[in-house]
Amino acid sequence: MDHIIAVDIGGTNIRAALFPRDSDTHSAINKIPTVSPQDPAISAVDRVIECISSIWPKDGNVLGICAAAPGSIAVKEGLVLLAPNIEGWENIPLGQILSEKFGVKTLINNDARLAAYGEWKKGAGIGYENLLYFTVSTGLGGGIIANGDVIQGDIGIATEVGHIVLHDKGNRCGCGLDGHWEAFSSGTGIENYVRNRLVGMSAADSPFDSETPTTPQIAAAASDGFPIAIEAFERAGYYLGIGVSNYLHIFNPSCVIFGGGVSQVGELIFTPFQESLKKHVLNLRYIENLAIKMAELGDNAGLVGSAEYIRDRLD
Amino acid sequence: MDHIIAVDIGGTNIRAALFPRDSDTHSAINKIPTVSPQDPAISAVDRVIECISSIWPKDGNVLGICAAAPGSIAVKEGLVLLAPNIEGWENIPLGQILSEKFGVKTLINNDARLAAYGEWKKGAGIGYENLLYFTVSTGLGGGIIANGDVIQGDIGIATEVGHIVLHDKGNRCGCGLDGHWEAFSSGTGIENYVRNRLVGMSAADSPFDSETPTTPQIAAAASDGFPIAIEAFERAGYYLGIGVSNYLHIFNPSCVIFGGGVSQVGELIFTPFQESLKKHVLNLRYIENLAIKMAELGDNAGLVGSAEYIRDRLD
Repeated sequence: MDHIIAVDIGGTNIRAALFPRDSDTHSAINKIPTVSPQDPAISAVDRVIECISSIWPKDGNVLGICAAAPGSIAVKEGLVLLAPNIEGWENIPLGQILSEKFGVKTLINNDARLAAYGEWKKGAGIGYENLLYFTVSTGLGGGIIANGDVIQGDIGIATEVGHIVLHDKGNRCGCGLDGHWEAFSSGTGIENYVRNRLVGMSAADSPFDSETPTTPQIAAAASDGFPIAIEAFERAGYYLGIGVSNYLHIFNPSCVIFGGGVSQVGELIFTPFQESLKKHVLNLRYIENLAIKMAELGDNAGLVGSAEYIRDRLD
Repeated sequence: MDHIIAVDIGGTNIRAALFPRDSDTHSAINKIPTVSPQDPAISAVDRVIECISSIWPKDGNVLGICAAAPGSIAVKEGLVLLAPNIEGWENIPLGQILSEKFGVKTLINNDARLAAYGEWKKGAGIGYENLLYFTVSTGLGGGIIANGDVIQGDIGIATEVGHIVLHDKGNRCGCGLDGHWEAFSSGTGIENYVRNRLVGMSAADSPFDSETPTTPQIAAAASDGFPIAIEAFERAGYYLGIGVSNYLHIFNPSCVIFGGGVSQVGELIFTPFQESLKKHVLNLRYIENLAIKMAELGDNAGLVGSAEYIRDRLD
């Protein structure tokens, strides 16, 4: 039977799934830690190979592999330029290594982009020709479908969606540049805001056990009415509205999908988002027929997207 | 002989050109003022019809018309939502009117987007699959090619390229919203900056005859070393770099083309632009193989783009 293999490489775990060529239901799946507990010196590349090998079909009939990796990837070369969460992953020709090892066509792509692809093909975005997908978690990533095709760019490093300047004198982003959308609306942005506001506050006045509360802790404090926590989400939602309005003006999509942990907090962030979005669009036509949806594939988006991506690119 | 007709509608003039289906060389062309000097009450729509009629071929063999209009256009409906420079042009179903009048397929599109299309097909952008075109003049418009296709969006109001927030507390844009790229880097942005800096300055200290100098006058003063004029272009160029870096992160194109009057001032704006661009890209891969070019079609870009656009969409 003809198969394809989808791989989702994260900083913590690597997952690989084997699919019949024409089925969404995997016939084998495995998950292993990215860093081997037995031997931490084993490279993440070898762990990827190990995970793929573990689900390789007995008949050996694999048409192609697609791997989703976190970070900046020169898609056309199959080259991981930089994956900050995986030790040593800088300029790793992962596509070439896997393709030589397994002897089949192998594609590498950014995990958020493949999650967007998955939502487009099998999730909340089915049927839309113009679609934005944003994953709001520690960072702010995503993927974009325009004219029924995924935006990747000349070498594949397009749709670094969180790295657009919204306020050129604004906070430093994790990437080292100032005032990016990600620095305002991501979990990291929310946490930094609260941490800065807690400076000098007596422990008795703070609802947190730590000076560096996490986004879920801040969300709980906001639900309990702690003003600084509420402000943190209001600010994140305000900039979420500005960022999305920018993208609406560029793409005029008919669907926007939100995934990622921060988007799970609900109205804490989406009420200020909706207000800000209405205020920042050039005219209401941009939002009149716009479907704003939550992602449907959850943690499987990367695997599903990888499977769909290679399926669509078999010869 | 089979023909197509291209029309470029501006606030000042309307131009129409007749092309053989398979030739870039027009066989007839006409230009008339948008507002009739004889009878200013004649509507701009009637003037468009008059201009098209004046070049209609004797054999009547026209396969299609494409008209470029300034403003926001719901392309799929052929509806001019708003063209601020043309009196009364709000919700004008121009596509339907022309198609009923002339009995041929008629497409309407934004002039800057069609100029981008023209540069892509016949000008500085030939052969690029991923291309940004920015026209920097009174406003800041443009068009985008991604995956070898023009970005238009769900109803056609995509690529309002100048209307992205670069500084959410920034200057008011012509559209009424704050901190848009256009408010920083367009001719209007440059003029507003200088006008504000001239407030309270004695006439003896100003090189300008007026308190509201034009962009060409400001460019001349900058060349003569007047600091405020130099600063105005440095600021515009700085934000030009930020805006373009945002678009590089979204599209990872291999070519950026600049058109429009302000881009004619040369290094006054492009030296600070280049410095800012290098500073604001996530990494140098975005600019390593990036061709940065000046538009080649000049005032003909809209007509050429219209002709190419309809040519590519004949059944």
